[in-house]
Amino acid sequence: MPLDPSGVGATSPPRNVAWSPRDCALYALGVGAGTDELAFTTDNTRGVEPRMLPTMPVVLGVDMSVLKAAGTVDWVKLVHAEQSIEILSPPPVEGRGSAQTRLAEMWDKGSAALLVVETLLTSEGGDALSRSRASLFVKGAGGWGGDRGPSRTDEEPGCAPDITVTYATREDQALLYRLSGDRNPLHSDPAYARRAGFEKPILHGLCTYGFAGRAVLHAAADGDPDRVSTISARFAAPVYPGQTLLVDLWRRKDTAAFRVRTEDGTSVLTGGRAELRRV
Amino acid sequence: MPLDPSGVGATSPPRNVAWSPRDCALYALGVGAGTDELAFTTDNTRGVEPRMLPTMPVVLGVDMSVLKAAGTVDWVKLVHAEQSIEILSPPPVEGRGSAQTRLAEMWDKGSAALLVVETLLTSEGGDALSRSRASLFVKGAGGWGGDRGPSRTDEEPGCAPDITVTYATREDQALLYRLSGDRNPLHSDPAYARRAGFEKPILHGLCTYGFAGRAVLHAAADGDPDRVSTISARFAAPVYPGQTLLVDLWRRKDTAAFRVRTEDGTSVLTGGRAELRRV
Repeated sequence: MPLDPSGVGATSPPRNVAWSPRDCALYALGVGAGTDELAFTTDNTRGVEPRMLPTMPVVLGVDMSVLKAAGTVDWVKLVHAEQSIEILSPPPVEGRGSAQTRLAEMWDKGSAALLVVETLLTSEGGDALSRSRASLFVKGAGGWGGDRGPSRTDEEPGCAPDITVTYATREDQALLYRLSGDRNPLHSDPAYARRAGFEKPILHGLCTYGFAGRAVLHAAADGDPDRVSTISARFAAPVYPGQTLLVDLWRRKDTAAFRVRTEDGTSVLTGGRAELRRV
Repeated sequence: MPLDPSGVGATSPPRNVAWSPRDCALYALGVGAGTDELAFTTDNTRGVEPRMLPTMPVVLGVDMSVLKAAGTVDWVKLVHAEQSIEILSPPPVEGRGSAQTRLAEMWDKGSAALLVVETLLTSEGGDALSRSRASLFVKGAGGWGGDRGPSRTDEEPGCAPDITVTYATREDQALLYRLSGDRNPLHSDPAYARRAGFEKPILHGLCTYGFAGRAVLHAAADGDPDRVSTISARFAAPVYPGQTLLVDLWRRKDTAAFRVRTEDGTSVLTGGRAELRRV
């Protein structure tokens, strides 16, 4: 059944959000950071300033219930299509604030609908910290006669990547990542995953996105979160926990392009783009 | 300087304690549980009752400040010597309660002191859930002319173990385990660990203890936490994150003995004993 485009612009009630150094370390470990990245995985290492990974705000305060403004969304038919984060002011490792999610866009892709939800995270003092956007593809929910919206172009640089960063994921990667918020059993319950058509639980798309964000940070932004302005990418194929991720990066002056492949050659994250700041 | 034995019997003020399914899963992942132990690492797997690992109460509410009753304890000279847990009533994965720590024993080992602190965890309704005991060896703090106390006997069964359970630990094992409470930089900060005389950060003794507890649970108690009554062991040597643990188990009718070795043959946990319940 088609969704209702008049829902565009609806906002969720502001949600109080608090995060601690423990939350930041847990998120960092969940996306594969370890003993080489103590700024992100510890907060009491002498001489190391504790920092939040730039992709972490995507797990802070996003309120998907705003989708209800578009009608009844069947969660089983919903696929996370794209994700972006814009860091407006790098959040500290301990903080409080408010998050508000808005149904920003709805596009009629024919049989499917594409919904874009945008979450603005604000500090307690009222400073805008980050804006994240999730694009969600809802099968069978298009057909209200609306605009198709901009079409995707898989504009990958026509040359070999400048560098490829290899990250192993672990069998229990999703079990760890889910403690940062998204406890959908698709990522943990084998029977549930099989019913959804997968051989076993799949990794959260946003976990793969977090690994990619680490590659951008370390290989294109000198490991300095203050240099990361935006990171965006499309989800192209599922990853199983335990697979190895190869992050291909193309570095330009103030930007980077990236994609993520698994070791079997499947592109799992495509059209990756990052904008970098000079500090 | 000798400690003051009149401190025996001192108790800490009761401490409010709360724990969530997320805390239980984080602890379980911290001691190596993964996709094969969804009862301990998830709380929404259909058909699987979520449970707390029997060793987890050792990270709930223990208040070492009670040691002050014995005088000024130099933390750098303190070594965790032994640990035990007694499960009085298996705690649920979500709960609130109160913990109170008591300086239960002090023994004068000549140049060193041996202090035993005991923590009783009680549910909100007043039920006793667990009693944990930590024995702490404080170098240079004995010599007040007191009793030496019972002597250790390394009573290992004189036969080959019935089973050896092998667990890999990971390079970032201590980074994950410390999120359950003990953030001593000895387990995370390379420079700090070097100053303390180690080549790199060492694993928490209680993390090794948690791995051993999982071996007891699965290899001697049918994976059923209701069957575990007590688990005790002595810390014999440090473990480095990334080393493999071999848990040797001797199974008897209502008890099990165990020890833990690293792959190079070093005994790291000795004199392990578990009492089991029939359910």
